[in-house]
Amino acid sequence: MSGQIVKDVTAANHLYSASFAKGNLPLPPGRKLAVVTCMDARLDPAKALGLHEGDAHVIRNAGGRSKDAIRSIIISQQLLGTEEVLIIHHTDCGMLTFSDSQLHHILQERFDGNDVRDIDFLPFSDLEQSVRDDVEYVRTSKVVRPEIRVSGWIYEVETGKIRPVST
Amino acid sequence: MSGQIVKDVTAANHLYSASFAKGNLPLPPGRKLAVVTCMDARLDPAKALGLHEGDAHVIRNAGGRSKDAIRSIIISQQLLGTEEVLIIHHTDCGMLTFSDSQLHHILQERFDGNDVRDIDFLPFSDLEQSVRDDVEYVRTSKVVRPEIRVSGWIYEVETGKIRPVST
Repeated sequence: MSGQIVKDVTAANHLYSASFAKGNLPLPPGRKLAVVTCMDARLDPAKALGLHEGDAHVIRNAGGRSKDAIRSIIISQQLLGTEEVLIIHHTDCGMLTFSDSQLHHILQERFDGNDVRDIDFLPFSDLEQSVRDDVEYVRTSKVVRPEIRVSGWIYEVETGKIRPVST
Repeated sequence: MSGQIVKDVTAANHLYSASFAKGNLPLPPGRKLAVVTCMDARLDPAKALGLHEGDAHVIRNAGGRSKDAIRSIIISQQLLGTEEVLIIHHTDCGMLTFSDSQLHHILQERFDGNDVRDIDFLPFSDLEQSVRDDVEYVRTSKVVRPEIRVSGWIYEVETGKIRPVST
């Protein structure tokens, strides 16, 4: 049990729920949109993109990699009717700072004897190319309909701005 | 190219970045926290939990399943120093509404000839049990240090409240 974090989060949620007036929103996203972006702490996709509760699926993982998000993307489109995907990577991403072999080495050292060599951590060395690759991955997926709109963006953690890479 | 969604998102981002004053935040999360939760459109984890830019990694996928988040959790802990994980599933989750075999059948019908039987979509039939399972998955992972705090929660889309399941 955690202590301070749980206390703080619980207190913040008490305030949030005290004025909550969105209890009747439908399950499918109102704007038929799915956003795939990084877990990075500096990103607040809702604030940065003007998304309100009920608007859009937000899928987040290390790097905002679409390959790691494909299960969620399929569910979003096939069961919940989204028709557009925004893929947003960002400047100063942690994924630019390591290689698979470096992380495998760290894990082998810290967790002696456990084999983690089968995990692809999906790091990248070129930010714009990573966006193009991930857009292409979704566009060419055999389980994504060709009429789904997919675009790729970079969020600048220095300025709060997004800029298009692949639209 | 998308049209209206891209116009709206770009306009919202223009407003956000115009008053942006958080360009110097460090890469590692300030509160050493990672949140794993669902992509559901009705959830705004930052608002619901009082998280500000720079505070916490936010990992989101269909259902908030920890198995699907393990790559990101490892990177969060091993490379970026987070020490606590909150796993938050929610009421009225889409993952409660289908089975793997049903979704496989839909995909087979809609994408004739493509084999998707190897994807586990990780649906669940018991919400509280899914939280307990996902907490256990992280707690017993061979690449998560035993001192990492892991707790499980349910977010109520009807009320905006979180309640503890496994702490």
